[in-house]
Amino acid sequence: MRSNRSPQEQIIGIDVGGTKIAACLVDLQGKILSSIRRPTDVTKPDATLDSIASSVKELMTANQLDSKNIDAIGFGIPGLVDAEKGIGIASVNLGWKNVAVRAGLEARLGIRCAIDNDVRAGAMGEARFGAAKGLKNLVYLNVGTGISAVILLDGKFLLGTHGLAGEIGHAVLVPEGPECKCGGRGCFEAVASGPGIAERALGKIKNGQDSILAPQGWSHSTPVTAENVFAAALQRDRVAIETLEEIGRLMAYSLQYLALAYDPEAIVIGGSVVLSSPFLFKSIQQMLRKLGNSSWVFGKAYTKDLVRLSTLGNNAGVLGAAALVAPQP
Amino acid sequence: MRSNRSPQEQIIGIDVGGTKIAACLVDLQGKILSSIRRPTDVTKPDATLDSIASSVKELMTANQLDSKNIDAIGFGIPGLVDAEKGIGIASVNLGWKNVAVRAGLEARLGIRCAIDNDVRAGAMGEARFGAAKGLKNLVYLNVGTGISAVILLDGKFLLGTHGLAGEIGHAVLVPEGPECKCGGRGCFEAVASGPGIAERALGKIKNGQDSILAPQGWSHSTPVTAENVFAAALQRDRVAIETLEEIGRLMAYSLQYLALAYDPEAIVIGGSVVLSSPFLFKSIQQMLRKLGNSSWVFGKAYTKDLVRLSTLGNNAGVLGAAALVAPQP
Repeated sequence: MRSNRSPQEQIIGIDVGGTKIAACLVDLQGKILSSIRRPTDVTKPDATLDSIASSVKELMTANQLDSKNIDAIGFGIPGLVDAEKGIGIASVNLGWKNVAVRAGLEARLGIRCAIDNDVRAGAMGEARFGAAKGLKNLVYLNVGTGISAVILLDGKFLLGTHGLAGEIGHAVLVPEGPECKCGGRGCFEAVASGPGIAERALGKIKNGQDSILAPQGWSHSTPVTAENVFAAALQRDRVAIETLEEIGRLMAYSLQYLALAYDPEAIVIGGSVVLSSPFLFKSIQQMLRKLGNSSWVFGKAYTKDLVRLSTLGNNAGVLGAAALVAPQP
Repeated sequence: MRSNRSPQEQIIGIDVGGTKIAACLVDLQGKILSSIRRPTDVTKPDATLDSIASSVKELMTANQLDSKNIDAIGFGIPGLVDAEKGIGIASVNLGWKNVAVRAGLEARLGIRCAIDNDVRAGAMGEARFGAAKGLKNLVYLNVGTGISAVILLDGKFLLGTHGLAGEIGHAVLVPEGPECKCGGRGCFEAVASGPGIAERALGKIKNGQDSILAPQGWSHSTPVTAENVFAAALQRDRVAIETLEEIGRLMAYSLQYLALAYDPEAIVIGGSVVLSSPFLFKSIQQMLRKLGNSSWVFGKAYTKDLVRLSTLGNNAGVLGAAALVAPQP
């Protein structure tokens, strides 16, 4: 089927992961028109760029598109990215360092390319197509294995002096709390990321609380993961629910700080952890409401829509990448 | 003595307070060439504007200046200010609401005027003449009776959606901590402002700790103020020192959050509370160093110069006001 859309009506977004490349053709409303998913070749940078480019070509061929139909392609890439220079500075998942990604892809495809970090692309996707559609002042908090925030001010990313702006996953949330991968203690990320959730639940079981997570009680081999905790909470397990409620309340304090620091139009939470558990988001919202009702200063910033869940879900990656090249509405 | 400086070489800054107006003639290096201090007439807005204008005129006459020698005058004003529109939105100290301050002053003086909130002016002063001289990305944390931060990004103020950006004095620092004037509990301001310091010291005395702050032990009439605590700490009073050390450590967490949220070139702390006590700033710095040494993420942002004390001291108000109209260097 030949596309009858003009170049201004369809865009391509590519989400490059360490194992898979997701490539999508998207309209300007964020509707996915066509998509494919191919393995990432991470043997060496050139091979990675080849596998990315061939995914794009395959998507275009399947949709009978060529460089006359597509103005630009957006790529979301894991790790440190210099979007302006088009460089992949470092990516553990892709195993590369200082790769001229944009130039490499443009040479292979003959179409203008834009690249950025995948979490920043996710923020752009929410602002363009998702939970913060049409907003220009936005905090996007990604809560998964790691925790970090992306800040959009007047439609542009705040990067900071060292590219650290929004790295609030490593601000202490619980003084002298659990150890963090960064070397600190009690960081937001150590408390509220997937591993932090598992650790808190395990602590309760260790203290003797009954839980379906450990039918025989605690032992060194009790296998507790965040996913187990989410599942147990759905079965009304007390330990799991308490864990998520406590973490939700703690997260609310960090969200309050974000709200007062930037005074954004909205804070969108995405990432596997928060999207996996209704208990967590409910607890966050309850605590924020309590804080908003008690403080008249925070009350001026707080509304029930201030903090929102991502609405792009599994498509956040590709839609974010597409948003990098979407023409202004 | 007639000034032999050109209009480009000298500026006037006016710090308008609820009781006094400070007016200074300043050179472009922030050197105060001449200053006067006059009472503020707060009987009604027009009288207030009259008293401000006459202070300016008096300063100009004393220095044989007229509108040919002065390009513009900057005014730092307490309370909510719409700098762009030149409106004093609300000020408890001046007792006004929605006053056309800039137009009123320009009509009285025949010289271009710029107004802004006094804390924002203070931030501009630090960036132009003080502890952050030459920096364009800056957090200025004012710690006095209240606590708030002013954010300079690329030389411009971040105001936020509701003008609340930087109001982190009302983010919870100690969950379920002391009551705050805002209605919340455990806000940064409730913990670390002047009254919060007094309350923490008093709590220790109430718990039976000996202190020169209460030679007869605790009673309902024990008069503890932040100033008393600062003075007692200088006399090595254990309760006073512990109080300031604890508050310094807690403040460090909020400063760490600010550093990771904005990744500024520097954070300048000003305001009476922090400037009054070397113990407090030392404790802040010790804790920040500990956090910077343990976390490799925060470590990328942390240096011993990241958080600095204001160097403008008592002149922050007038120099900040002058900075509002200082030509770009």
